[in-house]
Amino acid sequence: MKEKPILGFQTDFTYKEGAVCSMYGVVKTVDRTLEIFDGTHEIPHFDTWSASYRLYQSMVFWPKGTIFVSVVDPGVGTARRACVAKTKDGYYVVTPDNGALTHLKAYTGIEEIREIDESVNRLRATAGTSIFHGRDLFGYCAARLAGGIITYEQVGPAYSVDEIVVHEIHQPVIEKGRAKGILEICDPNFGNLWSNIPVEEFLEKGFQYGDLLNVTICHGGKAVYRNRVPFAKSFGYVKQGEAVAYTNELMKVAIAVSMGNFREIYQVDFGHDWTVELEK
Amino acid sequence: MKEKPILGFQTDFTYKEGAVCSMYGVVKTVDRTLEIFDGTHEIPHFDTWSASYRLYQSMVFWPKGTIFVSVVDPGVGTARRACVAKTKDGYYVVTPDNGALTHLKAYTGIEEIREIDESVNRLRATAGTSIFHGRDLFGYCAARLAGGIITYEQVGPAYSVDEIVVHEIHQPVIEKGRAKGILEICDPNFGNLWSNIPVEEFLEKGFQYGDLLNVTICHGGKAVYRNRVPFAKSFGYVKQGEAVAYTNELMKVAIAVSMGNFREIYQVDFGHDWTVELEK
Amino acid sequence: MKEKPILGFQTDFTYKEGAVCSMYGVVKTVDRTLEIFDGTHEIPHFDTWSASYRLYQSMVFWPKGTIFVSVVDPGVGTARRACVAKTKDGYYVVTPDNGALTHLKAYTGIEEIREIDESVNRLRATAGTSIFHGRDLFGYCAARLAGGIITYEQVGPAYSVDEIVVHEIHQPVIEKGRAKGILEICDPNFGNLWSNIPVEEFLEKGFQYGDLLNVTICHGGKAVYRNRVPFAKSFGYVKQGEAVAYTNELMKVAIAVSMGNFREIYQVDFGHDWTVELEK
Repeated sequence: MKEKPILGFQTDFTYKEGAVCSMYGVVKTVDRTLEIFDGTHEIPHFDTWSASYRLYQSMVFWPKGTIFVSVVDPGVGTARRACVAKTKDGYYVVTPDNGALTHLKAYTGIEEIREIDESVNRLRATAGTSIFHGRDLFGYCAARLAGGIITYEQVGPAYSVDEIVVHEIHQPVIEKGRAKGILEICDPNFGNLWSNIPVEEFLEKGFQYGDLLNVTICHGGKAVYRNRVPFAKSFGYVKQGEAVAYTNELMKVAIAVSMGNFREIYQVDFGHDWTVELEK
Repeated sequence: MKEKPILGFQTDFTYKEGAVCSMYGVVKTVDRTLEIFDGTHEIPHFDTWSASYRLYQSMVFWPKGTIFVSVVDPGVGTARRACVAKTKDGYYVVTPDNGALTHLKAYTGIEEIREIDESVNRLRATAGTSIFHGRDLFGYCAARLAGGIITYEQVGPAYSVDEIVVHEIHQPVIEKGRAKGILEICDPNFGNLWSNIPVEEFLEKGFQYGDLLNVTICHGGKAVYRNRVPFAKSFGYVKQGEAVAYTNELMKVAIAVSMGNFREIYQVDFGHDWTVELEK
Repeated sequence: MKEKPILGFQTDFTYKEGAVCSMYGVVKTVDRTLEIFDGTHEIPHFDTWSASYRLYQSMVFWPKGTIFVSVVDPGVGTARRACVAKTKDGYYVVTPDNGALTHLKAYTGIEEIREIDESVNRLRATAGTSIFHGRDLFGYCAARLAGGIITYEQVGPAYSVDEIVVHEIHQPVIEKGRAKGILEICDPNFGNLWSNIPVEEFLEKGFQYGDLLNVTICHGGKAVYRNRVPFAKSFGYVKQGEAVAYTNELMKVAIAVSMGNFREIYQVDFGHDWTVELEK
């Protein structure tokens, strides 16, 4: 018998009350043998961009075939589509189609996408409520798919990959000795900020570990941070409290304070209006 | 061989240090094959009412036979009873008998209750300490029960269901076009407040989705919120930042701010002194 | 076939983003059948003392052979050693050798320690980044060890137990009717403070439950808390809001406020400069 896929969940529910527990209970009631993992349940509320980024960040490290359920769903109970996407590298994502597939579509590719047929793949017992699709629709449908109760085709009708709702993706500009991108996400724990500049290209354009760079961060076009910052392999190459540019875990250029919180200290955040420029 | 029950845990311990980990280690030492799930470990400190509510909220979604361990235990090490309850719908709850069974007793029914015999079902190695019964008594006893090392009868002596310690349950009043209840719990993550008014009866008394209602929330009898609020199927039916009455995940009437936090914005909380009235 | 060891993880990563998820994905990709548990992911940032304490607090409750992965790693990507220690009581710890083995070395004993050979036991695919050894080195190596892909000897070369990096351990002084130690850690959730005074010796020197003690807490030699405090078996033996000395879950003398937070109320913390003295 083929091994059943693992189910990974990410949401903006937190673990503060019984929501995640109820959602997982539904999964185990569908099929007791399914294996469930937490992605993160602390995605910022309603932030479908971050949901998209966390899928892109984590999914590839899991075994092929793993099914990720992502529920950041400000439009729950309205007309937004509920879908299951199949990525070109062999994973499934069960999610509201509201931007959560942005990075996977751009960088990995979506092979096929299907709208969940609620007449079949929705929990019957809770039909009277419309506000908890993590439990009643996404979790339930994912469990049925993982458990082999339905095939991927039985999720519901396919629709065009071109119709997937996506956020705009910003393209960095990388030239000889000069790179400009956006701060596209943060590490909310350590306060590091991650740009969209791929290190491979950065190194090809003449940047080297050990360089002292001019780093400028702008918000809405206005400079809010400007400093000489070393580009190093890790935090420990600079003194505690000093800023450092480094290669992050996704092979992008990032910025941090060694044993400190760059984001808090310099009041810098992420998003399309936060640009970063690095110069040799 | 019969499948072993799943163990679900909820506490007010948080995951900040090694307590939950130690408790789960005891379970796996009793029986390596047992399956453990987190309910929530963020129940407000010492709040046995919330413990009771979270059991009521989540348990029913799990497979019959699942054993829930609930440890919100301000009286640990004193004379309060430690018990295992068997519910009328086929679940087990291992808990201090301190109010945590309130909702299950009222809405589901307790079929039988037994006091844990500490001379048999307590971890020997830690006999010198009296303050961590989650690890030393509740978790250990639950693991023995789940692992089939003891039967339910071997938990300890049964006592009368009438002796179970319960909080007062408030009964809502629902009339034609007018309903009054309490805000009995919140969603601490999104800041929604959940009343004790069942939607089924609410709809029977003439309320309909699309109605604009007069909503009054009182604290200790004094009005703290009064507004015209639409009753809708989900948050997205009103504009961002506007209040909405809706049917929550437990089929009760609840109130929220669309993409906002009602509890924080209007400084409203839950408990027996927080009433809500809705009028057509 | 021998059962595979359980993997327990503790870090200072939190669960706020995709780091823990990526780390666990690597483990499941190495061997789908491995069982993973969370210790805590909320160790204070860069605090290798707390990492050490949490291992000491929790590990012993798990089945012998369990592999703990501890990643509090301010020196990631620098010359600090990455190691796997084998304790005298039969557990394995995969960790940067940066103080995280302090308590296990002092109280349990380390039988053998090996430096991880990165040429074999590091994830290849992520070779270009040096800042996430939880995922790329510690988690990956631990999964290979747990899965039986490598033996303990194949982790890498052994080195002398004497070379293990440790923090200073403070020795308490316990005399007849008088005991002095440090507050060596806290319960960050309930705000209790745990001393390094073993209860067994404390009781041998004439202290008894029911005693009213003079408790003095000093910070940097200066008294910051001085009060008459009962020594009791649990919190419930004193009134709500009152301080109590008690035997904690590790059989050490600790201090708390009943249903309150001693640490916050009295602005007391832990560390080598925080001493506590108890007198009959």
